[in-house]
Amino acid sequence: MTGSGHSITVAAVDAETPGNVGTIARAMKNFGLSELLLVDPPELDPDGEAYGFAGRAREDVLPNATECSFDDLVEGYHTIGCTAITNEDPTKHVRYPALEADELVDHLGGVDADVAVVFGRERVGLTNDELARMDAICSIPARAEYPSLNLGQAATVVLYELRELTLAETQHPEELHERASEAEIDRLYDQFDDLLAAIGHPEPKRAKANRLLRRLLGRAHPTPREVSTLRGILRRATELSEPPDERPD
Amino acid sequence: MTGSGHSITVAAVDAETPGNVGTIARAMKNFGLSELLLVDPPELDPDGEAYGFAGRAREDVLPNATECSFDDLVEGYHTIGCTAITNEDPTKHVRYPALEADELVDHLGGVDADVAVVFGRERVGLTNDELARMDAICSIPARAEYPSLNLGQAATVVLYELRELTLAETQHPEELHERASEAEIDRLYDQFDDLLAAIGHPEPKRAKANRLLRRLLGRAHPTPREVSTLRGILRRATELSEPPDERPD
Repeated sequence: MTGSGHSITVAAVDAETPGNVGTIARAMKNFGLSELLLVDPPELDPDGEAYGFAGRAREDVLPNATECSFDDLVEGYHTIGCTAITNEDPTKHVRYPALEADELVDHLGGVDADVAVVFGRERVGLTNDELARMDAICSIPARAEYPSLNLGQAATVVLYELRELTLAETQHPEELHERASEAEIDRLYDQFDDLLAAIGHPEPKRAKANRLLRRLLGRAHPTPREVSTLRGILRRATELSEPPDERPD
Repeated sequence: MTGSGHSITVAAVDAETPGNVGTIARAMKNFGLSELLLVDPPELDPDGEAYGFAGRAREDVLPNATECSFDDLVEGYHTIGCTAITNEDPTKHVRYPALEADELVDHLGGVDADVAVVFGRERVGLTNDELARMDAICSIPARAEYPSLNLGQAATVVLYELRELTLAETQHPEELHERASEAEIDRLYDQFDDLLAAIGHPEPKRAKANRLLRRLLGRAHPTPREVSTLRGILRRATELSEPPDERPD
């Protein structure tokens, strides 16, 4: 769904290899899309490559895919034509101006219509005539000498870039990296300083060593668990390093 | 190359299907990488699927791929282990904390070492034992109910995200969308106002219509060509719309 509540559909025009259709379906399922339109598709044998490559999209995206005409696409949707080849010449408007894949989400934020992201053939992509009828052009930046991604891989990147619009939630926990509080981290620094004292680290060097640890952890953004584990270890080391007569009983 | 001039290598651990190795090689070629390391690879028959899926990477990346052991990886590189499954429980450090794929470039900016981006098996990915030995963990955010990307597709997304570090230039022209100057756009607005006068658009509504065009083009960021073409068309329409006695000869 786009921000305005409209749907995003994926369309494959004249795909030749069933495996690529399966790969597109799988990427759709991974990134939260379900409607697949096929213009002049190859035969999709349930025992063949399309289903073999589709992963769990074989349960729904692929069997629910519907055939339509290119005209249906153009008339029914705000169409985004994907192509590897953009124009050097900004006076030709077939492939210019184009959006880069990572600009799609911003672009679609303003689109209050059903959207179809359209992919072309394996070898030649979408033709100039087809691209001329698209509402917008999208291209994945790639190596100048070899910019043509495989069809299934191109679709995977574009659908990945749409994730903000299509995924309500991902498999990731709220925080993939929970940072310890400054107070927790400060207690670790204190413990480290106690250890330096306990091992008899020369007074003039203590400030330097403390700074070193502060810089190291400042870059690493330690988690609460990392801080508490290290602090426990340093505390024990401190206790064991203190001269016997100063040790707690 | 990373910012500090060190190389980024891709490693596939125990891949089962040659086609996925080919897909990884193609994504490497598309996104500017060349060194592929294989730990326990399947047989890569030059007439088989690996080469069939590799596109032009069959010329170099794939034939130059080298076998190595998992220990070689861990010892020789700053390793980034890629996995779909992260930890909910931040006290377990095998898969936590993790970077999301779009954070990799920032992370590697600070890494002054050869880097290996490591992908695991088709079904189970990298094992906990393998991930425990990686220097950092990376995960692609995907649909909570189906987060596992196909191996080749996962590699494609991760290598796409590394493009800032690996591509000196892409196939795209300097500007994929060159915006006309304000002066050019203003001349178009002036021409539009002239047209309104020529067609006898009611005076009280002219300001409104001018504002409408300004808002429309303000959102569209027109190119120089778009502006000059439209201005030419409006100029001609203005001339033809003027009462005959006011027309220039």
